[in-house]
Amino acid sequence: MNFTSENRFEFEDPRQVGAWWNYLYNDHTHVTIGPGAEGSSILRDPVIQQWNRPFRRLYLLDRDRGEVWCPAWAPMGTRLDRYCCSHGPADTRLEGELHGIRSTFRLFVPHTAAGEVWTWSLRHDSATPRHLEALLLFGLDNKNFMGWHCGWDNTRKALVKYAFPHHASYEEYDQLKARPTDTFLMPSIPPDSWAGRLGDVMKGACEGEAPLGFTTRGLSCDTVSNGDPVAAFQWSVTLEPGDTWRVDGINSMVQKDEPLTGFVPMIGTPESVDSELRKCERAVDLSESKLVLHSPDDALNRDVNRWMKKQITWQTRLWRNGISYPLRNILQDAAGYALYEPEEALVPLRQVTAMQKSSGYLKMWVTRDGETANHPLVKKVHDDGGIWLAICCAMGIHANGNSGLLDDIIPYADSGDATWLEHLAQALRFYDHELGSHGLVLMRDGDWTDPINGPGRGGKGESGWASMALAYACDQVAELAERKTDPALVAELRARADAHRRAVDTHLWCGDHYAYGFDDDGNRFGERRIFLNTQTWALLSGCGNAERQNACLSAIHALGTPFGPRLVAPPFPDWDPQVGRLSIKVPGFGENGSVYCHGAAFAAAALARAGDADGARQLVEQIRPSNPAHPPSASKQIPIWQPNAWFGDLEAPDAGHSTEALATGTTTWLMLTVVEELAGFQVRCDGIHLQETTLPDEWEDVQLERVVKGVRLCLKRLRDGSMELNGTPVSPGILSFESLTGG
Amino acid sequence: MNFTSENRFEFEDPRQVGAWWNYLYNDHTHVTIGPGAEGSSILRDPVIQQWNRPFRRLYLLDRDRGEVWCPAWAPMGTRLDRYCCSHGPADTRLEGELHGIRSTFRLFVPHTAAGEVWTWSLRHDSATPRHLEALLLFGLDNKNFMGWHCGWDNTRKALVKYAFPHHASYEEYDQLKARPTDTFLMPSIPPDSWAGRLGDVMKGACEGEAPLGFTTRGLSCDTVSNGDPVAAFQWSVTLEPGDTWRVDGINSMVQKDEPLTGFVPMIGTPESVDSELRKCERAVDLSESKLVLHSPDDALNRDVNRWMKKQITWQTRLWRNGISYPLRNILQDAAGYALYEPEEALVPLRQVTAMQKSSGYLKMWVTRDGETANHPLVKKVHDDGGIWLAICCAMGIHANGNSGLLDDIIPYADSGDATWLEHLAQALRFYDHELGSHGLVLMRDGDWTDPINGPGRGGKGESGWASMALAYACDQVAELAERKTDPALVAELRARADAHRRAVDTHLWCGDHYAYGFDDDGNRFGERRIFLNTQTWALLSGCGNAERQNACLSAIHALGTPFGPRLVAPPFPDWDPQVGRLSIKVPGFGENGSVYCHGAAFAAAALARAGDADGARQLVEQIRPSNPAHPPSASKQIPIWQPNAWFGDLEAPDAGHSTEALATGTTTWLMLTVVEELAGFQVRCDGIHLQETTLPDEWEDVQLERVVKGVRLCLKRLRDGSMELNGTPVSPGILSFESLTGG
Repeated sequence: MNFTSENRFEFEDPRQVGAWWNYLYNDHTHVTIGPGAEGSSILRDPVIQQWNRPFRRLYLLDRDRGEVWCPAWAPMGTRLDRYCCSHGPADTRLEGELHGIRSTFRLFVPHTAAGEVWTWSLRHDSATPRHLEALLLFGLDNKNFMGWHCGWDNTRKALVKYAFPHHASYEEYDQLKARPTDTFLMPSIPPDSWAGRLGDVMKGACEGEAPLGFTTRGLSCDTVSNGDPVAAFQWSVTLEPGDTWRVDGINSMVQKDEPLTGFVPMIGTPESVDSELRKCERAVDLSESKLVLHSPDDALNRDVNRWMKKQITWQTRLWRNGISYPLRNILQDAAGYALYEPEEALVPLRQVTAMQKSSGYLKMWVTRDGETANHPLVKKVHDDGGIWLAICCAMGIHANGNSGLLDDIIPYADSGDATWLEHLAQALRFYDHELGSHGLVLMRDGDWTDPINGPGRGGKGESGWASMALAYACDQVAELAERKTDPALVAELRARADAHRRAVDTHLWCGDHYAYGFDDDGNRFGERRIFLNTQTWALLSGCGNAERQNACLSAIHALGTPFGPRLVAPPFPDWDPQVGRLSIKVPGFGENGSVYCHGAAFAAAALARAGDADGARQLVEQIRPSNPAHPPSASKQIPIWQPNAWFGDLEAPDAGHSTEALATGTTTWLMLTVVEELAGFQVRCDGIHLQETTLPDEWEDVQLERVVKGVRLCLKRLRDGSMELNGTPVSPGILSFESLTGG
Repeated sequence: MNFTSENRFEFEDPRQVGAWWNYLYNDHTHVTIGPGAEGSSILRDPVIQQWNRPFRRLYLLDRDRGEVWCPAWAPMGTRLDRYCCSHGPADTRLEGELHGIRSTFRLFVPHTAAGEVWTWSLRHDSATPRHLEALLLFGLDNKNFMGWHCGWDNTRKALVKYAFPHHASYEEYDQLKARPTDTFLMPSIPPDSWAGRLGDVMKGACEGEAPLGFTTRGLSCDTVSNGDPVAAFQWSVTLEPGDTWRVDGINSMVQKDEPLTGFVPMIGTPESVDSELRKCERAVDLSESKLVLHSPDDALNRDVNRWMKKQITWQTRLWRNGISYPLRNILQDAAGYALYEPEEALVPLRQVTAMQKSSGYLKMWVTRDGETANHPLVKKVHDDGGIWLAICCAMGIHANGNSGLLDDIIPYADSGDATWLEHLAQALRFYDHELGSHGLVLMRDGDWTDPINGPGRGGKGESGWASMALAYACDQVAELAERKTDPALVAELRARADAHRRAVDTHLWCGDHYAYGFDDDGNRFGERRIFLNTQTWALLSGCGNAERQNACLSAIHALGTPFGPRLVAPPFPDWDPQVGRLSIKVPGFGENGSVYCHGAAFAAAALARAGDADGARQLVEQIRPSNPAHPPSASKQIPIWQPNAWFGDLEAPDAGHSTEALATGTTTWLMLTVVEELAGFQVRCDGIHLQETTLPDEWEDVQLERVVKGVRLCLKRLRDGSMELNGTPVSPGILSFESLTGG
């Protein structure tokens, strides 16, 4: 397995344990595909709707040899002469060869249209003609409580499954009828035969067997309504020596009887399909070109320039496919997105700002419009909404280098409106009424660490993390206020930051680390075990003196593993009524002592801010799935996307195993650390901040290209501290935007 | 495929399309098993909890031949020298033979303990020793949001997966900690090696392949917490010629660290396991002996004596595994159960009666205690609660032959209490305030036909079916009141029945059938298409004159198919705003024109009551999965349980296909028709009612054994109308219970 020169990830053995799938998407579609072509196909509008059951199967009946085999290996598990899975940023290709027949199956999501586009091609180079039957089988959603029918639609030239959405109330009909009901699978070449139900294809064969309905007589061609829906296409293929046979197609959903004419041109010819893929690839190239790292670390360059961006873009634009979710996710995703798509990132940041109430309160857990809540935390009170609103909007506004954004008028969710800056200030003032007896932010039902739901449920417990993060947020917004030359606001916010830090330092220091907070009875917790977040955010927010900060660094190191620091250690062995739900999670799992990558990425940022560039670089490497000391064979994770966590019990055989969950705030904080700290390229409202930074030990130099206000800039830093911008030596300080466009 | 002389169902080709699985249960456990050993394992207390992912896999590594095969065929799809799946009432046996190795896997649910018990035995008769590795792999639930761990517990001598229930609120902990967390799989012989995670067994192999972790070196023996949990056991087996190797085991759930000592004796020896199965079989025999049909129709005898009872008992005692469900289900199930377990049936009937409010209202859709509602209809208003309460309690009380039950004091759900008879009368009086402008029962959000939610949502639409069923209910309760010699109540109820019939006859007759009802605007519906239920219940409730009743019979025949009458014809082709949700179901599916077996079974009862014994017999035959004119190859349904519906579009290739759904009220009404109408053995509060009945054309005679008040009675009827009870000629009329015990 390896990355190719085109930065695709390829492997030649499909038999892998863990998360070996790619994900493909546009603003309307989310698709996954693994080594056997399996994976989900999901539309996100108007509501999240999975149109498939997650299998796509390819079978070939070799008439000359009288055998059936799977060119994409599964589910029969065919031993192939050659197999290759190639995951790219915009497509996946599965190649399989047996007895001289070469098959390639390719899947991608089109540039803008909702759906997935596939290509299956067959080729052989032997001396005699080959006679094949090709069978392509897509699983279709089978939760159709209102019934369904599936068959070939000769008008639309597609296999179409119709199913009306499940519902109970009469009143829902009018709204529901506007939803897509027709799952279509449109091949560029009409099949010689087809089937709409799994039973008609398999005829009772199990997954390890050849489908009994797949014979030289073809499939049943019945429009059906009972059983498990599929789309199965069969083509008879004769390959003359050197011939290539190819079929393309698109799968998606439309409304009842809606014409597919808009989709036809995309798969009209092989060239039109390939051209659509090139559009996607050009979009990838464009995105990659906006922020380009050239460090001595090839894996880091690969991740920053391609794979981490791919994940941040997905998280930001598809809101992680969430139905109910905490706003801190979209806020942090957008803040990372702003590093390379600053204007686009403003869209979700503005949307979330408009969800704030005029009191300053931002409810954390929300449900997407038109959906039914699917997470119990929607009913709970989390107080960190305003903190993340302030931090992430500040990041997004800075990345645009545009203090004018602070004057944008944005409504409140309840009544009135305010400038964006006032929104952020109001978010911070909200906490005046949310401080406990030690002056720390109330814990309520949990903070960033959702499952710490014990200490604050009585309304008195306090969160050290939230207080630190609030201090950090106050400073960030104060910096924005400075750009507006609003000294009163600056002073107010700086004073707030100081007050929050003071409360932390007065009440939470335990001698060698910061405790986490206080419970409702005023008992301090996080004394005997170290929580990562109150060490990292102490550093980020500037709590403590140098001695305390060094102790925090030591505490972070003490939490370390070869794949990053754990969120807490030692983990809770059993229920702890003080800390609550977190403690009942299995030790090493989730918030109870895994390397929760999002928290670990805070640590990378914290080390960098504390001046430990080399420590930060090491963490950035450790946490990522491309960590050479923690390869896929050990992590069970393909190195093209960041999982949510690494299992954290170092004594367990699954130490360091991936959770195989795609959605995580990790990537934003890693990207931020690399771009703003290690490469030291900071875009702020008043210009480009060129700090003196120390390069990590292993780096002789680093270059970062970044497009700022439409201008491509390349900042080069050398080990001796010297810098060049687009080849011209520059000194530490602030470079105004005017100086750039003038130059 | 065939039924054996022991009334087991066996087939020798595992490759079947459709529902070919058996279900096994006791009061605490529900298990399914199909031809490849796959199936669900579910505990129902304290909340419904599936402990497995639905696969059980058997692999053998033949060391002498160097090959891996599946003696239960799937998932590798091994071509076996011999295969047999044998489904019994209390167990399933899967036999597979290859190269002289004979494997038998047996699964059953113990008599009373929660769990599933399995036995795997291997035997060979060839001349030389055989060296095998045996691998048994159970999938375990993988929705463990609080983490899990799985490994061999040397204290409990079992493989144990621990996982705490998913929850959000702190307050839930105390309640949840009392729930089972430990899924255990305890073999009678400790395995030579084991694994707790699928990845450790398969090592990336797909389902069609041999598990790559299954080698002569054994499994990994790691206690694990990440990935997909399984329980995998490996034993090295050397079989001398003629040897048998056997391992037994039990799988279930207990609380955290709870000792398994209570389970050990059950699997202590092969004899103790077999003895436990014999307990189950004796319970089956006992249940079967309480009601025994001897008709000229062997398939009917088989179904009535065994398979329909098995289903009714499951439905009644496990409440169909429902979390949210309509009370009409449990009421009707219990009414059928009362035919052979009259006393046991009183338990759920009393429970539901106590859910009635003092106004007489019984909310139809409810949610099981301790569970979260999982059906949107829980929020809707259905008015047929009191109707079913009256009908089904009357059936249950009659079946006990005990009018004293009518004096039982049962509380109301809100306040106060009343005699059981008063509860039933109150249920009927409730409708005084629920009649529309035509004097028919209000339709509200739907009646028995839940998805007719259009006509009554405004509060004015009326249901003809509910009015007929209410008239029927009034007569049934009046008959009970007669036993209490309460002439005022009798007169009141008979008058009510007449009034409801009069309203129906005045407003719903369409010339050749009864319409269904009126919508909120006063428009009649069910005129152009025939709804089955308003024809069948017209007959059951005695609406109309002879002419109208004959027309109803014709209408029922017009709805006929080879597998029973459709619920409506023609089906609605598309959304009909008048009828609502039903109309958007796919034609032929569900309530929109399938042979909805429950409704079809009403028709069998109706024909019998109308004196058409032969028509009733034919329907009883047609509807059942053992219909010889609609064999499993056509129905896709194993003939040991009744599915919910047969697809009803006769033009479709799936005409008559099973929905493959086990839960249905069909069995009660078929059983009632056979026992009380065709065999004419009616137990009532005042004795045994021996009506003059006509035998179906094909029957020369019929005998029915029934245990009444502890006395086994055998009623024999001959074609000439003569009858014998326990060999003594009897005449039409009422036989008092005293005369029986005296005789």
